[in-house]
Amino acid sequence: MSDDNHLPYDQSHLYRLRHTAAHVLAQAVVALFPGAMLGKGPPVEDGFYYDFDLGCDDDGKARTFSMDDLPRIEARMREIIAGDYPLYYRMVEPAEARDLFAAQPYKLELIEELLNEGAELSTYRQDAFEDLCRGPHVARTSEIPADGLRLLSIAAAYWRGDECRPMLQRVYGTAWPSREELDEYLQRMEEARQRDHRKLGRELELFMFDEEVGPGLPLWLPNGEIIVEELEKLAHEMEDRGGYQRVRTPHIAKEALYLRSRHLPYYAEDMFPAMERGGTSYYLRPMNCPFHHKIYASKARSYRDLPLRLAEYGMIYRYEQSGELFGLLRVRGAQQNDAHIYCSEAQFDEEFLAVIELYRTYFRLFGIDRYVLRLSKHSKEGLGKKYVDDEAAWLRTEEMVRRVMRNAGVPFVEAEDEAAFYGPKIDVQVWSAIGREFSIATNQADFAGPRRFNLTFTNSEGQEETPLCIHRAPLGSHERFIGFLIEHYAGYFPVWLSPQQVHVIPITDEHNAYATQLVTRMQHAGIRAAADLNADRMQSKIRQAQMMKVPYMLIVGDREVQYGTVSVRRRDGLRENAVDVEHFVGMVKEKIVRREPTPATSP
Amino acid sequence: MSDDNHLPYDQSHLYRLRHTAAHVLAQAVVALFPGAMLGKGPPVEDGFYYDFDLGCDDDGKARTFSMDDLPRIEARMREIIAGDYPLYYRMVEPAEARDLFAAQPYKLELIEELLNEGAELSTYRQDAFEDLCRGPHVARTSEIPADGLRLLSIAAAYWRGDECRPMLQRVYGTAWPSREELDEYLQRMEEARQRDHRKLGRELELFMFDEEVGPGLPLWLPNGEIIVEELEKLAHEMEDRGGYQRVRTPHIAKEALYLRSRHLPYYAEDMFPAMERGGTSYYLRPMNCPFHHKIYASKARSYRDLPLRLAEYGMIYRYEQSGELFGLLRVRGAQQNDAHIYCSEAQFDEEFLAVIELYRTYFRLFGIDRYVLRLSKHSKEGLGKKYVDDEAAWLRTEEMVRRVMRNAGVPFVEAEDEAAFYGPKIDVQVWSAIGREFSIATNQADFAGPRRFNLTFTNSEGQEETPLCIHRAPLGSHERFIGFLIEHYAGYFPVWLSPQQVHVIPITDEHNAYATQLVTRMQHAGIRAAADLNADRMQSKIRQAQMMKVPYMLIVGDREVQYGTVSVRRRDGLRENAVDVEHFVGMVKEKIVRREPTPATSP
Repeated sequence: MSDDNHLPYDQSHLYRLRHTAAHVLAQAVVALFPGAMLGKGPPVEDGFYYDFDLGCDDDGKARTFSMDDLPRIEARMREIIAGDYPLYYRMVEPAEARDLFAAQPYKLELIEELLNEGAELSTYRQDAFEDLCRGPHVARTSEIPADGLRLLSIAAAYWRGDECRPMLQRVYGTAWPSREELDEYLQRMEEARQRDHRKLGRELELFMFDEEVGPGLPLWLPNGEIIVEELEKLAHEMEDRGGYQRVRTPHIAKEALYLRSRHLPYYAEDMFPAMERGGTSYYLRPMNCPFHHKIYASKARSYRDLPLRLAEYGMIYRYEQSGELFGLLRVRGAQQNDAHIYCSEAQFDEEFLAVIELYRTYFRLFGIDRYVLRLSKHSKEGLGKKYVDDEAAWLRTEEMVRRVMRNAGVPFVEAEDEAAFYGPKIDVQVWSAIGREFSIATNQADFAGPRRFNLTFTNSEGQEETPLCIHRAPLGSHERFIGFLIEHYAGYFPVWLSPQQVHVIPITDEHNAYATQLVTRMQHAGIRAAADLNADRMQSKIRQAQMMKVPYMLIVGDREVQYGTVSVRRRDGLRENAVDVEHFVGMVKEKIVRREPTPATSP
Repeated sequence: MSDDNHLPYDQSHLYRLRHTAAHVLAQAVVALFPGAMLGKGPPVEDGFYYDFDLGCDDDGKARTFSMDDLPRIEARMREIIAGDYPLYYRMVEPAEARDLFAAQPYKLELIEELLNEGAELSTYRQDAFEDLCRGPHVARTSEIPADGLRLLSIAAAYWRGDECRPMLQRVYGTAWPSREELDEYLQRMEEARQRDHRKLGRELELFMFDEEVGPGLPLWLPNGEIIVEELEKLAHEMEDRGGYQRVRTPHIAKEALYLRSRHLPYYAEDMFPAMERGGTSYYLRPMNCPFHHKIYASKARSYRDLPLRLAEYGMIYRYEQSGELFGLLRVRGAQQNDAHIYCSEAQFDEEFLAVIELYRTYFRLFGIDRYVLRLSKHSKEGLGKKYVDDEAAWLRTEEMVRRVMRNAGVPFVEAEDEAAFYGPKIDVQVWSAIGREFSIATNQADFAGPRRFNLTFTNSEGQEETPLCIHRAPLGSHERFIGFLIEHYAGYFPVWLSPQQVHVIPITDEHNAYATQLVTRMQHAGIRAAADLNADRMQSKIRQAQMMKVPYMLIVGDREVQYGTVSVRRRDGLRENAVDVEHFVGMVKEKIVRREPTPATSP
């Protein structure tokens, strides 16, 4: 995001430029909407925003911006830019600050907050507009390239993100060093809009939400369910190969279980509330681990039984705040590609690395070229609050994970205060084909769970020992992973994942029998094929199949019936006529069995 | 159960005989335990029981029977039987009844209840023992065959089944016309005990329960999960063949959904209580239908889209009373082999029959020879209470189902007041190999749901019409069906369902490499095989595999290594030596692919 190659974004010129653009936006709004009250206006990842309170109209209704206001504001911003005003920084005393922002209640609130924190107050001024600000900024307004600037959208946002505070009007804008870079950015945004998993999810009939079912609770439609099942099949194969055993455990349990697992003290905020009946409280599970611990504990284990790898594509429930719900990427019920590996300390390195290797295998299969592993650690302040209170165990386990990764030459970064409550974890960030970042997979080293559940094994000396537990979820949840895949492939799934793989279109009614016969042949070969025997015109059938992004259309008419062939039309437009049916079936079958990837960027 | 061939049990001689045996039991207890207070004592399916309150001991603790008391009581019963006392029936006036049972508080309660209901009071007396009773009984105590009688067990039971009332001591007994029949019965019971799915579930490591997880919530262990997955695979194949599409929907939803579906007014007692947060109530679903209705409603449907068959092995939750929970057969969370078929009235017959045919296909596959279809209907009194209040629709739909079944020549019986709240249903009772009855499958005709969810389709005349909905669950739930299968097969699952299919046992360490190589070969062929490379003695390894009921053991030693063969030992004891490996693999593979049944009765 930075134009200064090696600087972090918040120290870059681009960051300062956008920050100044936010101030210029505020100046323009105040000029055009007298009495506008200012909230905050920071630079953000790809641009900047500023929050405004426009007061109320005569009927007492809060005033809002309309999209028509944006060009007007933008024009005024260009005037200010053209004014080539320098930005002046100065420290201000509390009394003067209060005086300066007497008509700005939000700024006054910020001033008191800063003073409470013991911070000093400062402002930046361009032209006659002075704003409470720490900076940094560019030197003059003219450094903002007028043709690299664009106001994008208006949104409503609560002051301080608090639903009990006033609702402000947020204006989003972006700014780039040049017209070309702005255009590229807008094109990327349009591409992302086209790839938006919510839009494609609707168009391809993959999933839906329903008001009466509830927010964050997706219903998988038949097309989406096919993708879900293909992913499960893939996971089963990988688990079988990796020596996992699968289990299936309840989605609810008594309070007692979560007290033992410590989810209740440490994770209650993220859980659905209790169901109370007959004097007992039941909870939906936020994680699968306590149940797998119970299965481990169900019989005596010896060192010869380890590593024990228990896998479950398990359903979990987390009460995400409604404001944070986002399509499939942030949901309240998710099915997680989970497993728990119980092993001795001596086995830890090998098992942990095998999981990392599993991730890489998956990433290759899905054409994920860019990813980063992050070692998320505890924080000293969080001990006993966010984290199980045993500093020595934390440091020891973190060092263990660090050592494994280093010895194996796996590149990773470290992050403080991001661990699970029961141990450090490796979070895996991946980037989609258009460069958006997703948190998908996780791999955690748990020293606390096995102790809490009194898990033991008899070691080769005949003594009782506590195993370590590795939590891993390489594909994350169905929900988030498929959300990622939709964007990554722009809906052009590889053949093996495509809900429908072949669409047969007879040219006229007379070719219906042949079309049906082809479908039967393909279904026998395990290919998901259907024929469109409706009365619609052929062109409209082709458009329909293209919209559904079906990898192959087969157009069949007199010639095809006569010679027992098909005319193939790929979704990328490529055509091939007079293809032998068995040859075509063999080719598609091969792509399915080998799970051949489609290049992520091409249709 | 009846010895009078065509009489219902409650009009049979056997029923009267057992009823009298219950009175004789009461007389014996009163004689041996002075002050014993009498509860109820009816005949039941295979015998009879009587409930007693033995008062408290000096420490105020309730007195209980011990197993040692049973022979003593039984001896006393035989004396009474030998006394050849006639049974005298008489009507009694309320005042006399109250006087007669002045020392029997439970009887007094029953008397008042009977009087409230406007019933007349009567007693039966043998010897000096007179009991409040409507009959019927045999004429004389000597009609009870003294050597066909056996007291079986003691249980605790709340008076009137109410947890707030006193806990009584229940003595169970059985009585048969002859010693031979008693012996046969006891043998059947022992067989059932051996086949008890809870006992076998533990021994074969199929599933477990856990106190902290909660009652009625099974955890599937790796072996059980294999059976679950095989059943799902089977269901998927059948669904694909039957033109079903699969979906996957949330296990919780907002109150609004269940209000619309009417589960909340009609089914609330069976549901888990609400989870309330942020002003919204969420409920675990007791059925999948409302979610499928939502998917139907997610787009415009035309007559060309029907029948639409939506299948989901969906998780449901029902709050069964803790006293009714029983292993896998009565649970609180179950995964149901569900589907909903939306069709026009014209399509109803064909779709309904296809479901019945599907049942029969499944039954053949699982060797279920004995089953009965029962048309469960509404009751007039239940309208608006247990049943959706639309009598005309009830009568019409019931007649529709009746007509379909009759036209197709499907034998069935009818039962009043057993329907689902939204429509009549076909309940399928099946009998296991040892003749125990299970309610497994259900097939329901729903006229109410589609209306409540405003489901429509455009018919061929371009008008909006409401579809019918068929609910069907041919395999019931995983939980109940596997519970049934365990008993049905006595744990000797057919090869395709066996968690482990082949167990390779090397005679000494030197044969380990060959054993491992065999396992790899078989795993490649999709056979679930493992080798036992532990240091245990060969005989103990064989015993272990026999206990786990693995279909094939392969014993490999010098000869086998030398000639590349295996010695096969089937779980029924049959042995074959020097079998070619590829021949064996092919034979097992064939059984798996064809899902070849094992005769249910043989190991």
